[in-house]
Amino acid sequence: MRVSELSRASGVPVATIKYYLREELLHRGETTSPNQARYDTSHLQRLRLIRALVEVGGLPIAGVKDVLAAVDDPDVGVHAMLGRTVYAVTGAGDGGDDDAGEFADRAAKDLDAILARAGWQVSDRAPALDGARTVLARLHELGQCPGEDTLTLWAEAADRAAEGDMLAVGRSAGRADVAETALVGTVLGDALIAALRRIAQESHSARRFTAGS
Amino acid sequence: MRVSELSRASGVPVATIKYYLREELLHRGETTSPNQARYDTSHLQRLRLIRALVEVGGLPIAGVKDVLAAVDDPDVGVHAMLGRTVYAVTGAGDGGDDDAGEFADRAAKDLDAILARAGWQVSDRAPALDGARTVLARLHELGQCPGEDTLTLWAEAADRAAEGDMLAVGRSAGRADVAETALVGTVLGDALIAALRRIAQESHSARRFTAGS
Repeated sequence: MRVSELSRASGVPVATIKYYLREELLHRGETTSPNQARYDTSHLQRLRLIRALVEVGGLPIAGVKDVLAAVDDPDVGVHAMLGRTVYAVTGAGDGGDDDAGEFADRAAKDLDAILARAGWQVSDRAPALDGARTVLARLHELGQCPGEDTLTLWAEAADRAAEGDMLAVGRSAGRADVAETALVGTVLGDALIAALRRIAQESHSARRFTAGS
Repeated sequence: MRVSELSRASGVPVATIKYYLREELLHRGETTSPNQARYDTSHLQRLRLIRALVEVGGLPIAGVKDVLAAVDDPDVGVHAMLGRTVYAVTGAGDGGDDDAGEFADRAAKDLDAILARAGWQVSDRAPALDGARTVLARLHELGQCPGEDTLTLWAEAADRAAEGDMLAVGRSAGRADVAETALVGTVLGDALIAALRRIAQESHSARRFTAGS
């Protein structure tokens, strides 16, 4: 199809498609004349992926580029590729405040306890460790860090979600498909799990609070 | 304390504090002279809450204002207030495309099946329903909607997380504290659960993919 048809099919404006081509987020089409190229469903699929990452996942274009580079690199094994994919969509926290030392210490202890209870094995360099510590420090700063029981249930929730992720990834056909499934599942899965959590909250809250209050 | 001390203690610039006062996100201090007011720990706590919602939760100032209005309104019961709080921090999806009809239908069926399996009771007006449908439609559009097994595990994860939320909320002292716990737990909890999910993914992926690939 021509670029105008690709634009219509994907809902992405032609100017934006040309920008993605220049930035190498999207692979070139087959040149049919000096000013024209033909695109196929692989281009449509990639444009839909970029839109989902930007619109649902809230990733900046630079983040999308990083993550697609990890997906497209054939020189790494599946586990390493999943790591790069997931690392690229994980903020490593906001660095924290200088005066957050006390909260940071308590956050680090909380996270160590969570990891020990869950039995998770991860690299010290995993950016999600920093991300988790930053959020825990904020919760302490607000005087709202939940107790061990809540943190344990949240960790069990994360473990259950990751179990679901592995089923989805394990069913993917090729290596590129594994990467895309992991990427989409992580970014859109966060949004879906957050929405389902609010639905579950409403259901649990109705049972707990409507009788008495 | 004076506004300059409040600024130092909270890490929020004086100009931003004055903006929050004008926008009524922050309650006025006790006037001590025509140009001066005294602030206390309630102001510091509120500023930390606003910062967490903006910096970790990524809420726009208008969203923070909505959500704090729900927390501060004494005329609603706990369940209704939790609803307003959670609704205010829940995007109702991006509206979707006109041509997403087929995907929207499949998303609606998926969500009905998830709700039936989970046994959740929710209002038809819950914005998280739209949010969940929008994400599911995107997953179908990408050809990456996970199977029933993964969706069931994600829903179990959401249920487990909400169970943890109820424990934290149930332990809060007063009505205002319940609201703040629910708000902070929902917004910062999403970020923490997402980070823990990545840690769990890495741990599960190492077990699954490093032997063979």
